[in-house]
Amino acid sequence: MKLGPLIINHQSIIGVIGLGYVGLPLIIRFSEEGFKTVGFDVDDSKVDMLNKGTSYIKHIQPEKISSAIRQGFSATIDFSLISDVDIIIICVPTPLGVHNEPDLSYIQSTLQSIKVHLRENQLLVLESTTYPGTTEEEILPIVEDAGFIVGDNFFIGYSPEREDPGNKDYTTKTIPKVVSGYTENCLKLTKALYDQIVDQTVPVSSPRVAEMTKILENIHRAVNIGLVNELKMVADKMNIDIYEVIDAAATKPFGFTPYYPGPGLGGHCIPIDPFYLTWKAKELGMNTRFIELAGEINKAMPNYVVQKVGGALNDIGKSIRGSKILILGLAYKKNIDDLRESPSLVIIDKLLDLGADIQYSDPYFNQIPPTRKHKLELRSIPINAKILSDSDIVLLVTDHDDYDYDLILKEAKIIIDTRGRFNSDNDKIVKA
Amino acid sequence: MKLGPLIINHQSIIGVIGLGYVGLPLIIRFSEEGFKTVGFDVDDSKVDMLNKGTSYIKHIQPEKISSAIRQGFSATIDFSLISDVDIIIICVPTPLGVHNEPDLSYIQSTLQSIKVHLRENQLLVLESTTYPGTTEEEILPIVEDAGFIVGDNFFIGYSPEREDPGNKDYTTKTIPKVVSGYTENCLKLTKALYDQIVDQTVPVSSPRVAEMTKILENIHRAVNIGLVNELKMVADKMNIDIYEVIDAAATKPFGFTPYYPGPGLGGHCIPIDPFYLTWKAKELGMNTRFIELAGEINKAMPNYVVQKVGGALNDIGKSIRGSKILILGLAYKKNIDDLRESPSLVIIDKLLDLGADIQYSDPYFNQIPPTRKHKLELRSIPINAKILSDSDIVLLVTDHDDYDYDLILKEAKIIIDTRGRFNSDNDKIVKA
Repeated sequence: MKLGPLIINHQSIIGVIGLGYVGLPLIIRFSEEGFKTVGFDVDDSKVDMLNKGTSYIKHIQPEKISSAIRQGFSATIDFSLISDVDIIIICVPTPLGVHNEPDLSYIQSTLQSIKVHLRENQLLVLESTTYPGTTEEEILPIVEDAGFIVGDNFFIGYSPEREDPGNKDYTTKTIPKVVSGYTENCLKLTKALYDQIVDQTVPVSSPRVAEMTKILENIHRAVNIGLVNELKMVADKMNIDIYEVIDAAATKPFGFTPYYPGPGLGGHCIPIDPFYLTWKAKELGMNTRFIELAGEINKAMPNYVVQKVGGALNDIGKSIRGSKILILGLAYKKNIDDLRESPSLVIIDKLLDLGADIQYSDPYFNQIPPTRKHKLELRSIPINAKILSDSDIVLLVTDHDDYDYDLILKEAKIIIDTRGRFNSDNDKIVKA
Repeated sequence: MKLGPLIINHQSIIGVIGLGYVGLPLIIRFSEEGFKTVGFDVDDSKVDMLNKGTSYIKHIQPEKISSAIRQGFSATIDFSLISDVDIIIICVPTPLGVHNEPDLSYIQSTLQSIKVHLRENQLLVLESTTYPGTTEEEILPIVEDAGFIVGDNFFIGYSPEREDPGNKDYTTKTIPKVVSGYTENCLKLTKALYDQIVDQTVPVSSPRVAEMTKILENIHRAVNIGLVNELKMVADKMNIDIYEVIDAAATKPFGFTPYYPGPGLGGHCIPIDPFYLTWKAKELGMNTRFIELAGEINKAMPNYVVQKVGGALNDIGKSIRGSKILILGLAYKKNIDDLRESPSLVIIDKLLDLGADIQYSDPYFNQIPPTRKHKLELRSIPINAKILSDSDIVLLVTDHDDYDYDLILKEAKIIIDTRGRFNSDNDKIVKA
């Protein structure tokens, strides 16, 4: 059967490469629609867990994995099985190198692993966020080198992921999905594929437009958060509570959208993706100054928080060295178990360097797992009146809903609030 | 009677100083609710027109003026009549000086004109956009010098205007209004006042918070437009249509709000107000780098457009000098008769300097009125097939809905489109 009918009849076998925050929900979604799925990953511990029906992502319930297994799902580290699938969807990470340059090594090694196993009549779709041109410059040559005629006996698409872990209002199914293809046939098949699992697809004219779309979404957030972070510091000098200002401005029914400041950007998208465009733009002699300014200001936020801690301690005649600081929250945003790029880790590291006596509490992390940059041997402690009142400073970095904010307000001596959670008219609150 | 009951019973007399885009709709709105109103302005031609029941603002119908007159409205240049009113609302312009510094001269001269006429039990509200601190630093001392005790026998408020000329969805009545007062009594009266004429008031804790709120709204727009203007130039180099990208991104149901690029910022708010904060921040040793970057990029847009014109002419072997260029649109945004800060004037000026043969068409302006910077002796011409096809370039600067876009597309040789109005897959379209 041709690929189009196979897709429409839910008989095409779906291969997803990269079984993380993006790939796993995608597999589950295809399974829910009756597709047989194969998950590929280089991490055999993940593969083992999935094949046993267990989950390693908190917001993905194990029942969803078991249910996918009943629908024919299996996970594997054997990339030769790529020849068994009709659809190949690549969901591997695209991090930054140490000089803010794109690190496409996960995509490139994936392509190296699969290229000898590609066969005619397959559709290969990239979902990873990347700079405009990647699909044509990185994927197309490999497929053509393998002897295929793209748009004729092999098909290439790009459809950026829009996952938002922790978002209760939208799911993989209800978030509209931008789709593109290298040729018109490629677009048709890519659109047909996602039409089976999402309520609305948004076709665009080329992979580079789709790539730019995803980057724009993240640039928009990074810049707007950078802007309010800068204005927060200015407002602070003017004795103005920026949260009161933002909430008042948000009553304007047109022309304004509220964004909120914080202790710095986190997560695997917003702090990273914009620099993919910066890098590519430089190749063309262009600058992306808003992105660089946002990066600079957002990256300086943990320092600003540490300064506020130092200032508050100084007011009571203490130094950071030797002071007891209780950190509330490790995750990069509230109510999730994701530490990637979390500013909390940077803040803890800086305070430790300055000699602080650090404890932390985060219901999502019993201990601080080792990250690329940090090896912190701390364990989460439960909050109680004694712990709060024994601390010189309680530093709220992530405003999880689980915390007992009334207790914190009652017992803490000084609260450094990086999230605008507390009303600033209480003397013990310092906004940072 | 005390001021509060006077307001609530619609018996307080409302004096509005500055009868422009902000003051006039405000007077009309108070009249509609049965208040007697007095309009103050230094421009006696405006005062004469209003007293004859005529309007000098296109979107304000003369019937509304006549109807206000029947309700007791009159206009005057005699500021001694300030002692007859209960409420004084200042709606004068707050432009920028030539070095991007705040020009508060209209507020200051207003205060000089009225200070000897102030009397006990009046409420004075400033609506002009300005930097945080203005109400306390400029208005308060003058009222106190006049011998009043603010909050006791005289009241001061700040409530920023949110007028949006041409907006069909919202009116003075339906746009929520931020209100503040120097003391609690001042806030109560200011809130009570606006509660009579708008559906929702939004009280904030101080005039400086209200001042910052209005500035934030405009900074948000200036920065977001600056961002898409920068990305437009980058996308152009990548052969990507930024409008297609923005529209695709706008399908994301959370975390993204579309803003569109253009030929540069215009109007009396967005290009100007943000620099009020920049100026004030410098007093505190702080920078507002997003505002300055947005200003720089937005101000460079007319140059970018002129470069695109030059490039398109160069492609057909012509110079700007001697080429026939038809400009569509003078107003700073579509469907309004407002030229203030319009980038169109800057573009025309530059093209004339370069020797272009310029004609223009704008249904809202029969001729180009003299502005502070430009004295252009041109008259609007109607668009027809001959004019379009005789022009080397048709340059769309303001995308008024009145234009016959099909005719333009059919007859023009080259269209430079600064508004994304045309689909870019036609060869004669150049996006700028």
